[in-house]
Amino acid sequence: MSEQKSFHMTPDEFRRYGHAVVDWIADYHSRIESFSVVSTVKPGEIRASLPANPPAHGESFEAVMKDVERVILPGVTHWQSPNFFAYFPCNASGAGILGDLVSSGLGVQGMLWSTSPACTELETHVMDWLVSMLGLPRKFLSSNTGGGVIQDTASSAALCALLAGRERATNYASNKTGCDGRLVAYASTQTHSSLEKAAMIAGIGRENLRLIEVDKNFAMRPDALAGQIDEDERAGLTPCFVCATVGTTSSNAMDPIAAIGEVCRKHNLWLHIDAAMSGTAMLCPEFRHLQDGVELADSYNFNPHKWMFTNFDCNCFWVTDRKALIQTLSILPEYLRNQATESGAVIDYRDWHIQLGRRFRSLKLWFVIRHYGVEGLQYHIREHVRLAQEFAGWVRQDLRFELAAPAPLNLVCFRHKGGDAANQAIMDHLNRSGALFLTHTKLNGKLTLRLCVGQTNTKAQHVERAWKRIQEEANALESTGALASST
Amino acid sequence: MSEQKSFHMTPDEFRRYGHAVVDWIADYHSRIESFSVVSTVKPGEIRASLPANPPAHGESFEAVMKDVERVILPGVTHWQSPNFFAYFPCNASGAGILGDLVSSGLGVQGMLWSTSPACTELETHVMDWLVSMLGLPRKFLSSNTGGGVIQDTASSAALCALLAGRERATNYASNKTGCDGRLVAYASTQTHSSLEKAAMIAGIGRENLRLIEVDKNFAMRPDALAGQIDEDERAGLTPCFVCATVGTTSSNAMDPIAAIGEVCRKHNLWLHIDAAMSGTAMLCPEFRHLQDGVELADSYNFNPHKWMFTNFDCNCFWVTDRKALIQTLSILPEYLRNQATESGAVIDYRDWHIQLGRRFRSLKLWFVIRHYGVEGLQYHIREHVRLAQEFAGWVRQDLRFELAAPAPLNLVCFRHKGGDAANQAIMDHLNRSGALFLTHTKLNGKLTLRLCVGQTNTKAQHVERAWKRIQEEANALESTGALASST
Repeated sequence: MSEQKSFHMTPDEFRRYGHAVVDWIADYHSRIESFSVVSTVKPGEIRASLPANPPAHGESFEAVMKDVERVILPGVTHWQSPNFFAYFPCNASGAGILGDLVSSGLGVQGMLWSTSPACTELETHVMDWLVSMLGLPRKFLSSNTGGGVIQDTASSAALCALLAGRERATNYASNKTGCDGRLVAYASTQTHSSLEKAAMIAGIGRENLRLIEVDKNFAMRPDALAGQIDEDERAGLTPCFVCATVGTTSSNAMDPIAAIGEVCRKHNLWLHIDAAMSGTAMLCPEFRHLQDGVELADSYNFNPHKWMFTNFDCNCFWVTDRKALIQTLSILPEYLRNQATESGAVIDYRDWHIQLGRRFRSLKLWFVIRHYGVEGLQYHIREHVRLAQEFAGWVRQDLRFELAAPAPLNLVCFRHKGGDAANQAIMDHLNRSGALFLTHTKLNGKLTLRLCVGQTNTKAQHVERAWKRIQEEANALESTGALASST
Repeated sequence: MSEQKSFHMTPDEFRRYGHAVVDWIADYHSRIESFSVVSTVKPGEIRASLPANPPAHGESFEAVMKDVERVILPGVTHWQSPNFFAYFPCNASGAGILGDLVSSGLGVQGMLWSTSPACTELETHVMDWLVSMLGLPRKFLSSNTGGGVIQDTASSAALCALLAGRERATNYASNKTGCDGRLVAYASTQTHSSLEKAAMIAGIGRENLRLIEVDKNFAMRPDALAGQIDEDERAGLTPCFVCATVGTTSSNAMDPIAAIGEVCRKHNLWLHIDAAMSGTAMLCPEFRHLQDGVELADSYNFNPHKWMFTNFDCNCFWVTDRKALIQTLSILPEYLRNQATESGAVIDYRDWHIQLGRRFRSLKLWFVIRHYGVEGLQYHIREHVRLAQEFAGWVRQDLRFELAAPAPLNLVCFRHKGGDAANQAIMDHLNRSGALFLTHTKLNGKLTLRLCVGQTNTKAQHVERAWKRIQEEANALESTGALASST
């Protein structure tokens, strides 16, 4: 075969197709409100549009992009739509996308400092920046005993924290000889499900993750936590770890970190703070009271990919004692040995997470922080919170509805007073309409709607229209008699 | 603050900056051979070039890109250089980069089928394509009892496989009540370190991962495996899992899968196949004999991000019994419930890996397969193997050197006969010269150089020059008298 036929894209082709993809993305964002927010395809529909067999010969780039439009787009739920109010947001931005593109273009693998020093050092640096940006304790700094690392998701960060807590409590013996069935960890009934998954993965077992009761605001009760720990200690078990949450997934509840931290300190338990979405709010000093007591934490994480305009995946995870984390996760085979590592003068991030290989993720975070500046990030966070609070006010004023939980930031949990069926119908109609997307939870056993304001381009008009549509659905329910009057 | 000052990049700015980044990447690849392959910065040097504090106000995109050039590039080890022969490759391509850019632009989060059906269905579809492309058994197909999922790395895939093996062996009890210190898993002394890490994470303990002896070709000895399992069973322990490798990291050794599989079948152990790099070679039928017996495996994984032109991260992981994997990793909180999931008609990939959130990674894989076609991928794999075999031939012909292991594919392990110090000196000089990058391992206690041919743009001229430079270093060692003549 001749040297000519290399199959690779030439640099000129890359330029041409690359420009086309950039333009396609810009166009996609310009027309994003023309799509149903939630995809309306049926199970199997996308696969049915794809050929059964892989192509024997290469196809043109134009053909592939046509299929992105024809086959893929109908199956996309538009997370970047300003009418996306479901789950937690996942708000990308131009700066984040382009930072990640640079990462793809460089194509480095940052498992060791020496495999690309800039990949490690920019990450350490940006993570130190964020310590001050979020008002976190100085012991999380890499220049102190701590340090930060970018993980993929809060699930992975929680697993790493749990493992470090497990090892510290067993004097690093469970790494050697395995778990012994006596380790116990603690979260609340409202803690994210990833903690239950982490307890399963870590060999602790989900029955040994105690789900502590919450108060009327869905925040963990420190007295109940202390009582459970005492009981477990009396039973000869080994408590090792507590997860407290700044902004639970279900209702954005704020666990009382200071009180929980005192309990942890008394019993020498690893305290992990999960601030997956709400951590971004700490960019604004006026919200930091929500995590009072954070100086008692051993680890902390939040997701810039949720609310800080950094495209997925990007989780920021800090520890105050990096040696504990490294001792938990380190393995050094011969083929990874190198002088920089042996010198002890560098960070090798492979010892800070589950994976060995790693992308140059700090680029997108650096691009975002530099593009917006602290000022720009604060502006948008405050706007989102203001819009959510305005929405909460409208709910309060409409006697057919009620707030189901305090709304401290950008998530509003509310429900129609007509009961679960009414709320299910409202949600299903809204989501099926394609005009917006919101999801549900259960609070005190009742179906509850969640409206989370956090998409990059969500403005007042989108939240106003969402409320108008919700009211219309409530009106429709009443007019069809499907609902006993409840006001 | 006025509506005008939104801080966001406008669509027009995104187009302009996006085109500039695409051009920058094309330029980077055009001039990549002008850089020292290995970064020459000292620890701390990159950080010293960065401002101590984050920017209060946003900066121009031009300023950020200038710093990519000025601050970041000197700290990059150029994994995409055609002179990169170290570790395993991580070979990106234009098609892969642009597929990933589309993923960033869409910004979907595919944790559930319903959160973007196309994200799930394209992945399932491409993973089924790859089953036939690699000649894997049909039971790995999603249309059968199995199915594939894209993970980040082989480390995560191995962890998931180990967990599934652990659960199957304990009738899913360790998920509930934790590990009991009696579980045992098996790998070889040459298996990748990620298995040891997985045993630590999974609560099994690294002392309970038996590292089975290897034969003269560094392949696991099935008789030694069988003996160890018998011994562990007699001791009342619970064997649960075996990892066999198609192409070890250290020397590209091929474990005898058929014989190992028979042992696993007899003892009902989960057999995982790690084909991280070498799995890509299975695109070519003539190499598939290297994994004879793969029909006995319970799970299999390889990394398209290593050798299949798909930019990091992209690991393909299959199981033959998807129910076992899902039962191992599934958790369903209320806020993730939805009709599609309840119907049972869809795949929710959150139950197939450690994380909850996930990127639309199948796009880049789909772009690569369509761009190259099976033909184009096979062409490049065959070329890389041919070049490595040519290099191995040169080593054989130079009496100062010897091959340290069989070279079945694209990795050549070799050494100067002058001993460890000579090899260390050769490697250090070469890497410091900036002309190429290779790394080492130890085989039979001896320092061994590894040359792996797999970068996207590595051609005959690069491998020829590498050998010429290696010979020059050997000559230099002799002329300086640093070496006793050894031929």
